[in-house]
Amino acid sequence: MNHPYHKIVLFGDSITQFSFDPLFQGFGASIANAYQRKIDVMNRGFSGYNTTWAIPILRQLLPTVEQQKQPAKIQLLTIFFGANDGALPISFQHVPLEKYKKNLEELISMVRSPSSPYYNPSLRLVLITPPPINEVQWKVVCEENGIQLDRKFETTRLYAECARNVGKEHKIPVINLWDEILDRAKEQNRDLSQFLSDGLHLSSLGNQTAYELFMEVINTHFPELHPDALEMELPYFRDIDPKNYLDALQFKLIQKE
Amino acid sequence: MNHPYHKIVLFGDSITQFSFDPLFQGFGASIANAYQRKIDVMNRGFSGYNTTWAIPILRQLLPTVEQQKQPAKIQLLTIFFGANDGALPISFQHVPLEKYKKNLEELISMVRSPSSPYYNPSLRLVLITPPPINEVQWKVVCEENGIQLDRKFETTRLYAECARNVGKEHKIPVINLWDEILDRAKEQNRDLSQFLSDGLHLSSLGNQTAYELFMEVINTHFPELHPDALEMELPYFRDIDPKNYLDALQFKLIQKE
Repeated sequence: MNHPYHKIVLFGDSITQFSFDPLFQGFGASIANAYQRKIDVMNRGFSGYNTTWAIPILRQLLPTVEQQKQPAKIQLLTIFFGANDGALPISFQHVPLEKYKKNLEELISMVRSPSSPYYNPSLRLVLITPPPINEVQWKVVCEENGIQLDRKFETTRLYAECARNVGKEHKIPVINLWDEILDRAKEQNRDLSQFLSDGLHLSSLGNQTAYELFMEVINTHFPELHPDALEMELPYFRDIDPKNYLDALQFKLIQKE
Repeated sequence: MNHPYHKIVLFGDSITQFSFDPLFQGFGASIANAYQRKIDVMNRGFSGYNTTWAIPILRQLLPTVEQQKQPAKIQLLTIFFGANDGALPISFQHVPLEKYKKNLEELISMVRSPSSPYYNPSLRLVLITPPPINEVQWKVVCEENGIQLDRKFETTRLYAECARNVGKEHKIPVINLWDEILDRAKEQNRDLSQFLSDGLHLSSLGNQTAYELFMEVINTHFPELHPDALEMELPYFRDIDPKNYLDALQFKLIQKE
């Protein structure tokens, strides 16, 4: 499509892939709604994938230094893996904790390292921790699939903590979904199951939490990217002179795809 | 972003612009959810706009014949105008019925006419009629804005009928949102207000209707574009050999943006 908008890319596993589900008020759809007519929100979620698989994918998605000269840009990239990396070693999705850390750092350095062909100092990065596992719920799913419980609360907790630490070390804002969901469950006296649809993926409450934390990160770290700080593509309809509308209706970004 | 997916473009007025709103289970988000990892659903809705303004916009969005050689394509375009064209002549958004018809035909011929620089015989077009106006609800909005009622059921009905006829004449599938919402309201013994959030825009029930009709058009007219007929981008995670994942994780479309 000609005259693309700027983009926010949601990169992650199934929790991202399912993030437009209207049944669960997906956080991706909420972000797209907040940025309507300002930024296109692209779903690059891959169900079942871990950070090891994410690396060759991100290499294909990111613009090279040369390609970054195009006016329409990826303004922000979320990196939301860990729910599969943190699967128990019996699962082929499992990535050892140390390797998970290295992988996250490799994803970040692909954007942040000046020697990377994808070096992109203006691309905003946001890490998202996996949400808490609710073993009671997830056990049901595993049993339905004829397998033993392959994810545990205590194991995934270490991956969430690791994502948090990587963010801290590399000065990347982190959406701490793990702690926030547990905190809200406690404060609101709700069972963890109310934040998760199946013990692993987000329910409406979980998605709402993810969306609110996303907007908090925007507010705190990237206020220039807040929807209120951005102009709409094409003028507000009341500002259009019906007798001279042609001049007004020109898209700003002239990149050709 | 490199390796773009194919696209569905939702082109229209505010009803399209608001179509990712999770509060009302927006039909755009539902379509994006149905096509996750297969096709990107792009919101090109412009609140308050009519078909006269749509013409110069669509010229900027459509790929020229030359640009259509790129592998990632717009597979389908919805044209969903009429709710503003059908405003009463007191409104500057008003477009006379005959002009509305001509405008719709111009939008179609931009894609269908062999002499058009945007001639695109493989681009699927879908027309969407405006939904019914509920004057009781909309009057409240008008009063809040200090204006008199600027849309009427009977007037907009003619625009919906016109869109239907244009579709018939030009063999373009039509989502007959006008009749379907009225039929459902009758069958389900619901008030029209349950399908509309404010008498003009869609509520959850209205959005659900729009989404279901969209999928019906896909099923009936474009079964090759049904999500079940399309391969996912990148393999299903259980089909990936963890020892040899690099070869598997190659995107199919190699277009550079």
